[in-house]
Amino acid sequence: VTSESEFIGALRALASHPAARDLADDAAVLEVGGVILVLTHDMIVEGVHYLPGDPPEDVAWKLVAVNLSDLAGKGARPLGVLLGYALGDDGWDRAFAEGLGTVLGAFDLPLLGGDTVAMPAGAPRALGLTAIGSAAGPVPARSGARPGNQLWVSGTIGDAGAGLALLRSGAAEPAGLVERYRNPRPRLEGGERLAGLVASMMDVSDGLLIDAGRMAAASGCRARIEIDALPLSETLLAWAGGGRTARLNAATAGDDYELLFAAPRESSSKILALAEEIGLPFSPIGGFEAGGGLALSDRGDPIPLPDRLGFEHGR
Amino acid sequence: VTSESEFIGALRALASHPAARDLADDAAVLEVGGVILVLTHDMIVEGVHYLPGDPPEDVAWKLVAVNLSDLAGKGARPLGVLLGYALGDDGWDRAFAEGLGTVLGAFDLPLLGGDTVAMPAGAPRALGLTAIGSAAGPVPARSGARPGNQLWVSGTIGDAGAGLALLRSGAAEPAGLVERYRNPRPRLEGGERLAGLVASMMDVSDGLLIDAGRMAAASGCRARIEIDALPLSETLLAWAGGGRTARLNAATAGDDYELLFAAPRESSSKILALAEEIGLPFSPIGGFEAGGGLALSDRGDPIPLPDRLGFEHGR
Repeated sequence: VTSESEFIGALRALASHPAARDLADDAAVLEVGGVILVLTHDMIVEGVHYLPGDPPEDVAWKLVAVNLSDLAGKGARPLGVLLGYALGDDGWDRAFAEGLGTVLGAFDLPLLGGDTVAMPAGAPRALGLTAIGSAAGPVPARSGARPGNQLWVSGTIGDAGAGLALLRSGAAEPAGLVERYRNPRPRLEGGERLAGLVASMMDVSDGLLIDAGRMAAASGCRARIEIDALPLSETLLAWAGGGRTARLNAATAGDDYELLFAAPRESSSKILALAEEIGLPFSPIGGFEAGGGLALSDRGDPIPLPDRLGFEHGR
Repeated sequence: VTSESEFIGALRALASHPAARDLADDAAVLEVGGVILVLTHDMIVEGVHYLPGDPPEDVAWKLVAVNLSDLAGKGARPLGVLLGYALGDDGWDRAFAEGLGTVLGAFDLPLLGGDTVAMPAGAPRALGLTAIGSAAGPVPARSGARPGNQLWVSGTIGDAGAGLALLRSGAAEPAGLVERYRNPRPRLEGGERLAGLVASMMDVSDGLLIDAGRMAAASGCRARIEIDALPLSETLLAWAGGGRTARLNAATAGDDYELLFAAPRESSSKILALAEEIGLPFSPIGGFEAGGGLALSDRGDPIPLPDRLGFEHGR
């Protein structure tokens, strides 16, 4: 038991209200006077979640986008955000405010409030964002997958992970991969439209395998993933190839901010029709069965799990 | 123009939604499907808002209480909180979680969600809290005071400021003053019951004078404060005396977390009856007139404003 998991255990004891979903979902779901609110708060820390040299505009984008992705995973429409901001140097703050304007403009969202604080000189800064959204109907939980359900993922996976690897090696091309890392697009429309069709839904932030494993654990079943079915972009295929190692890298890298969802087999034609309608692909990548844990296969053959399934402490 | 005020100016441009109240109120007020939500987010930073040696239980209390006080100032009933927590050492974290349990228990509030992050080794930590509440009716703004209104304050002021001065000098007595500093009690019932009676309301966090000045500025009138009418506790009177210096100290120290409100003269009997009913004193301490700024008097004689009206960057 790490001290972090002990601390989270202590918090869980304070989160006994059903709205908190045992702190085991992407967001809180609070009903107030017939309105279903979905609330999430994420923090990012300089030197941990972003580097001092990262463009401040991108830090702003990511801070907003990762919170909106949590709302998307719950099928909620965002209403606004509150910002907790630690002041740094003037130029950085100015560029951050510009980037915040860009991302809020892109999603047509208001800044509702928040707080601005000074940090002791030289201290790494911590930034927080609260996003509030509302849902039109029942909010899919992580725990809703059932044996027999298909497992789906939106868009393509692995692009952002490859983008981060490129940045770490000092490269900036292919630009499409770097862009997926720096400016993730939360699947808000997809999440909202899928909410009524799925048994379970969440966003992929820490890695497809680790997040699918969390859905399986919350749902009390086993997730089976066919790695040859994982949707990879043309750009990623050209850069990394489509072999098993490339697919396992894509499935464990994280930062995808795609939707991962379980649905009964009879919903598949509706899901595919929706994909067509909104122009966002949804790919079946496996399913759920009785049991526990995660099972992988590649072209029909079972393969062992990689040592690392994704980020352990991403949320 | 400081860089902080420039940054806040840039944020204000992003906060054009009426719910944001131009970032000039204690909280955002968002209507969703007929429900009036009140949202606030405050951050506290180690070494800035609390000292590494402060008891973690008290830091937890204060983090929650200051956010609830913002809701009280808007007459909202709190529904829950989201925590943004930067992990430190195990013992501190454990004691913080215990203190969080105490304060949430005291106000019968659930922890709804949030985020836990690691900080780089040795970095001062930043903690954030979002509180969400709902209001039963119109939410009093800072900007609602009108010439002819009386100005009122709840409870007693200056106790917490004296408590902080005691702690800084290494003293722990009188304990009642230290307690007011460490464990402020947001005036939730008072705020909720007053909301329908007042023209304007806010909480006093940065100092009575500076906060009254903000209410006056937002309302476009002048606030007149009779410092001999300020309600001081018996304990503070015994410790600091009731002279002009003691009263000006009390009026500028901050951390009071009392309610400051403007109301038409004809509401005064209802306000006094409410005070009686809920056992929280409300004291008339002056009023509003045409003009701008702040005017002080002591036993009928005008007196100059002190150099420092309160904390400039407390919110």
